[in-house]
Amino acid sequence: MAGNLIGREFTITTFGESHGKVVGVLIDGCPAGLGLSETDFEEELKERIPDNPKIVSARIEKDVPQILSGVFNGYTTGAPLVIIVENREVQSGDYEVIKNLPRPSHSDYPARIRYGGFNDYRGSGRFSGRMTVALIIAGVVAKKLLAHYDIEVLAYTQAIGLIKSDKEVSLFECRKNRNATTTRCLDVACAEKMEAAIVAAKESGDSLGGVIECVTFNMPAGIGEPLFDTLDGDLAKALFSIPAVKGVEFGRGFRVAELRGTENNDAFCIQEGRVVTVTKNAGGILGGLSNGMPIVIRVAIKPTPSIVKEQQTVNLLTYENTQISIKGRHDPCIVPKAVPAVEAAVAITLVDHLMRSGNISKILKRP
Amino acid sequence: MAGNLIGREFTITTFGESHGKVVGVLIDGCPAGLGLSETDFEEELKERIPDNPKIVSARIEKDVPQILSGVFNGYTTGAPLVIIVENREVQSGDYEVIKNLPRPSHSDYPARIRYGGFNDYRGSGRFSGRMTVALIIAGVVAKKLLAHYDIEVLAYTQAIGLIKSDKEVSLFECRKNRNATTTRCLDVACAEKMEAAIVAAKESGDSLGGVIECVTFNMPAGIGEPLFDTLDGDLAKALFSIPAVKGVEFGRGFRVAELRGTENNDAFCIQEGRVVTVTKNAGGILGGLSNGMPIVIRVAIKPTPSIVKEQQTVNLLTYENTQISIKGRHDPCIVPKAVPAVEAAVAITLVDHLMRSGNISKILKRP
Amino acid sequence: MAGNLIGREFTITTFGESHGKVVGVLIDGCPAGLGLSETDFEEELKERIPDNPKIVSARIEKDVPQILSGVFNGYTTGAPLVIIVENREVQSGDYEVIKNLPRPSHSDYPARIRYGGFNDYRGSGRFSGRMTVALIIAGVVAKKLLAHYDIEVLAYTQAIGLIKSDKEVSLFECRKNRNATTTRCLDVACAEKMEAAIVAAKESGDSLGGVIECVTFNMPAGIGEPLFDTLDGDLAKALFSIPAVKGVEFGRGFRVAELRGTENNDAFCIQEGRVVTVTKNAGGILGGLSNGMPIVIRVAIKPTPSIVKEQQTVNLLTYENTQISIKGRHDPCIVPKAVPAVEAAVAITLVDHLMRSGNISKILKRP
Amino acid sequence: MAGNLIGREFTITTFGESHGKVVGVLIDGCPAGLGLSETDFEEELKERIPDNPKIVSARIEKDVPQILSGVFNGYTTGAPLVIIVENREVQSGDYEVIKNLPRPSHSDYPARIRYGGFNDYRGSGRFSGRMTVALIIAGVVAKKLLAHYDIEVLAYTQAIGLIKSDKEVSLFECRKNRNATTTRCLDVACAEKMEAAIVAAKESGDSLGGVIECVTFNMPAGIGEPLFDTLDGDLAKALFSIPAVKGVEFGRGFRVAELRGTENNDAFCIQEGRVVTVTKNAGGILGGLSNGMPIVIRVAIKPTPSIVKEQQTVNLLTYENTQISIKGRHDPCIVPKAVPAVEAAVAITLVDHLMRSGNISKILKRP
Repeated sequence: MAGNLIGREFTITTFGESHGKVVGVLIDGCPAGLGLSETDFEEELKERIPDNPKIVSARIEKDVPQILSGVFNGYTTGAPLVIIVENREVQSGDYEVIKNLPRPSHSDYPARIRYGGFNDYRGSGRFSGRMTVALIIAGVVAKKLLAHYDIEVLAYTQAIGLIKSDKEVSLFECRKNRNATTTRCLDVACAEKMEAAIVAAKESGDSLGGVIECVTFNMPAGIGEPLFDTLDGDLAKALFSIPAVKGVEFGRGFRVAELRGTENNDAFCIQEGRVVTVTKNAGGILGGLSNGMPIVIRVAIKPTPSIVKEQQTVNLLTYENTQISIKGRHDPCIVPKAVPAVEAAVAITLVDHLMRSGNISKILKRP
Repeated sequence: MAGNLIGREFTITTFGESHGKVVGVLIDGCPAGLGLSETDFEEELKERIPDNPKIVSARIEKDVPQILSGVFNGYTTGAPLVIIVENREVQSGDYEVIKNLPRPSHSDYPARIRYGGFNDYRGSGRFSGRMTVALIIAGVVAKKLLAHYDIEVLAYTQAIGLIKSDKEVSLFECRKNRNATTTRCLDVACAEKMEAAIVAAKESGDSLGGVIECVTFNMPAGIGEPLFDTLDGDLAKALFSIPAVKGVEFGRGFRVAELRGTENNDAFCIQEGRVVTVTKNAGGILGGLSNGMPIVIRVAIKPTPSIVKEQQTVNLLTYENTQISIKGRHDPCIVPKAVPAVEAAVAITLVDHLMRSGNISKILKRP
Repeated sequence: MAGNLIGREFTITTFGESHGKVVGVLIDGCPAGLGLSETDFEEELKERIPDNPKIVSARIEKDVPQILSGVFNGYTTGAPLVIIVENREVQSGDYEVIKNLPRPSHSDYPARIRYGGFNDYRGSGRFSGRMTVALIIAGVVAKKLLAHYDIEVLAYTQAIGLIKSDKEVSLFECRKNRNATTTRCLDVACAEKMEAAIVAAKESGDSLGGVIECVTFNMPAGIGEPLFDTLDGDLAKALFSIPAVKGVEFGRGFRVAELRGTENNDAFCIQEGRVVTVTKNAGGILGGLSNGMPIVIRVAIKPTPSIVKEQQTVNLLTYENTQISIKGRHDPCIVPKAVPAVEAAVAITLVDHLMRSGNISKILKRP
Repeated sequence: MAGNLIGREFTITTFGESHGKVVGVLIDGCPAGLGLSETDFEEELKERIPDNPKIVSARIEKDVPQILSGVFNGYTTGAPLVIIVENREVQSGDYEVIKNLPRPSHSDYPARIRYGGFNDYRGSGRFSGRMTVALIIAGVVAKKLLAHYDIEVLAYTQAIGLIKSDKEVSLFECRKNRNATTTRCLDVACAEKMEAAIVAAKESGDSLGGVIECVTFNMPAGIGEPLFDTLDGDLAKALFSIPAVKGVEFGRGFRVAELRGTENNDAFCIQEGRVVTVTKNAGGILGGLSNGMPIVIRVAIKPTPSIVKEQQTVNLLTYENTQISIKGRHDPCIVPKAVPAVEAAVAITLVDHLMRSGNISKILKRP
């Protein structure tokens, strides 16, 4: 099977390359009757890039989304949606030098083998963080669909390097403050330390990784398709499509390994006539199915592999060891930019499963 | 899409229930020409259950595999393979009491909603650890296919509760000692402590979780289908189908969040004419593609939710709070039994991707 | 993609071989809550074989269906259904002689290439008409689901060789008389001529083909997924899985090529408050979608390729021309046995599309 | 599953609407290394429309193909290919009148139900013959891939209304003369009669249908995936996605129903060291697999439903009977324009199956 499609009912195929003509997405299976216009995408794309030149790459695309198909009279038609943005801020010359010198911890080397050298290597081509723009565009559609059903997905930075935020923040603060800090951290004091850490890493020609947490509110119980199309499995799969993700965990995640059953089990109780759990260690998923509690996911993001410091690599033409110092415009830490990508990956997966279960219908009611 | 199938070229559908007639698997897309007989499955199924009554459930099935289709004259035909084992050691009466009282941190509650109460709840039905027998059977076929190409998958216990094994063990020791300890830990001294911890938990009516690590040797570079059918994404998805998995990470996993680019990047070098990396933080995957280094995966396993200690739950008929004490036969720690399931999930995913890339052909050469 | 699965929401994978242990089917995606027992299959399997030794093969299996999984307390659970019948009446020795001599117009030759010679060639293996038993079993489930929604699928013989039935028969007669004649023809006078034609062909060591028509009543309008998963396209695909089908047409089919628009167009009108068409040339499908009128399909069935008369073929070991006279037990005309297979293929495709559209829900209401 | 995608390895999703911004196609799974440029599409798109104003619609798009992604340095990269043409010659006002009056034998009525009235009805939207432009674009890529392997697909008009061509024409003439006649008939004398028939139908405000035959040369044996993803089944499915197709048959098709086994069976023989058949009744497919002989397919095309003559229909707002006379620009016979669409549908299906079998590799050799 060709491998650029995700989902079963609500399917997403991204296309385009970092330095090609466009980056875009084809969505098949979007319900008919969703109000949608190009302005819906503009805000999300604008917010994608933190307004802080100290911590982001010098390549700043003013992305102008164009809907090519699937919308008629302001509503989705049920036919495939195609939405593109053109690439403009391209400096491909930067990449010729690395054509035969794979950058450490980049996809350059395996991609060359996978595609027999025919792949567009400029700016990492299909493997660039730039491709998350297409994911985020799809996420806008998914989040609008979820909003119809009062389901809300919120991601935020939990850690950058060694700086970690443990402060509990309310949903209200979440909504309000997520984009208030340029590092997308809900804890303002912590956000300042994170920014300083990124600036310091950048100045030393180095980079930082971090952890993003994502919470989904109001997800109904019983969503998922065990044994194989589990909700957690499909969420994890979608999240690993974001470059730099190296781990995905739910609820208390890896920490459950150290707990006893008596500590980890979430007791059920009745609260306002609903079945809820007293604790939330499961992260909202049991047996591959949502259990009606908030879905809590954490993803580990590795430090940007593109760093200015000289590194050891090989020349793939001569098969000799050599050195590389990466030019081009790179983010010293991609965590803040990855936050909306995480939200998008989660939202499209949830929409897909909600459609599979029949909880999102194929034709939305006229407002 | 019906959700009980995984894979694209080498597809697995498991069927059966914990207390039903059989547990089985249908494999579609297995290459023709693989030597296969029922004895191939017997050893793996026998080794699945540690020979140690102190740490395993009292339900011990002597599983007798039957090949129903897809093998002719000792070789796979290319037609669907169906393999079953009958369930014999069933004590379903144990489960009637929990019909309307969902066990904490079990799938009982969301499954009831998902299937409108029609699901077979006896012994957790489809959600039982018993279903991993079907996965393991498929894994036997996958591992035989990988062996044709000299690829080897090995999983082992890395931690149980607070007991962790850090000792580096060679591949040779790996192969030899994996099943030498009943906890499936490569480090013998550590294995003893793990066993003691499980026994202690059992005696106190409690349970333990742990961490399983899985390493794949000799995987060629360039395997995977970005952007969505990434190798890491598909491995994670397969692994989350194993009950109790709450986290999946590759290489240094969540620890990369704390590293700088200079620390995390794996420099390339030429070694015996091959491109390799000096360090192995990536865990063998870059940009969703294998990079030719060993693939290293870790999964977090939660403590068995079935514990004897009384727990708080709800009655789903009356919507009142109540208590439950779980009878039935349960493992105080499922980590040792989950080790072959992890291996199976990894092996079937790798075979699928190797077939997609054409690295495993559809007709094997006659030996 | 492995190729033995059909459907998206209601998926069918058949397994087994003509002379193997079993023939069976795995159904994934069957709604929970359908009453189902082994007796449901017995009648259909019994009626499959016309009670008339003059026109059917001497191999008569008394098929005993066994449900291996997916049913609990008499209702489907929503988990995969596996149903098998054992093969008993096997005389495999008949087939050794044809191992290297492909029978004209049989799958022997391309199957040998496709599977590198590893395929089970006994009795045509996977390519045998025997495999339609698995399709028919799946069709029983599909027809029970359709019956919940008052949708009815009826197939019958329209032509055998040069004998054609043109008589219009009412739905009431349809239901009553379909299995009254051993050739499955609704027109009793015609049925007698068909039987005589088959007997004559058999006596001369020859065989006959024919045409089967299938009508579906009460199908709602708007079902189908253009542009590619069209209702007619998916019906055709399912029908071509029945051995010996060489053509599929809808409504007036190939005859529309000779009509003018004024002759072929079906005018709309209101009848009892419903939109209907005055004529029925479209066969119930427009633009890949059902239009609310009965769906009318015709399939062409070729004469049984296995004939006693000596035929020219080749020896695949020596690559020399040679002759073959086919022994074994064969039907002189498979049309009557193919009638329930056509019904099954249509029913499973309709269920699949009705589930995709949400018209059949994933949990049936308790009766 | 969202329904706008076809194929498994070489997948096609078309998008756009007749009167929307663009018509386009996304191809996923195209091998890397195929030389491809926009001029490759120009010729095919130009030839699509017979240069004969007497027999074609007044809407003539000068389609300018744009490759948006998937090509780098003149070669496909292995990433998704997106190719679009803009719609320019749009007169949407023509369609407002039919918004609530479904045209007889058009998709208007079922489409309105399927999409809850949100579908773009202008010019039939997604159901317009205009969408075949996207199919033809995909077909160009598929035919270039087939040409790498010396496989050639040729379709031509066999009948228009009552005018039928029976003359045998050589492959050489085929290649040379297919586009020599504006009706795409290989028999020049017959072509003139066909043209006259179309002109006569047009003048009387009526329309004609016809039959298209398609032959594929050099297809290797053993391609297909029984039992469900049969080669004939998948070809039929793809062909039914072309608007107006009402029947598909292989080889002698429906005529086999009248033949005896001795007449229909194709004897094997050795010819120049290859296994071939003496006769060609099977149309190149046995048991769902190619048998190495030319693949012969015929499709029935219905007369254009849009005719000037007044027809009876219903008003979907008032549920009253009414009349309609269809304005807009329509082809009096779409058969000539459907010829390249048939070729495209066949070519993309064959590429998909050749990739599934490994006969087309994922990376083409550099020329």
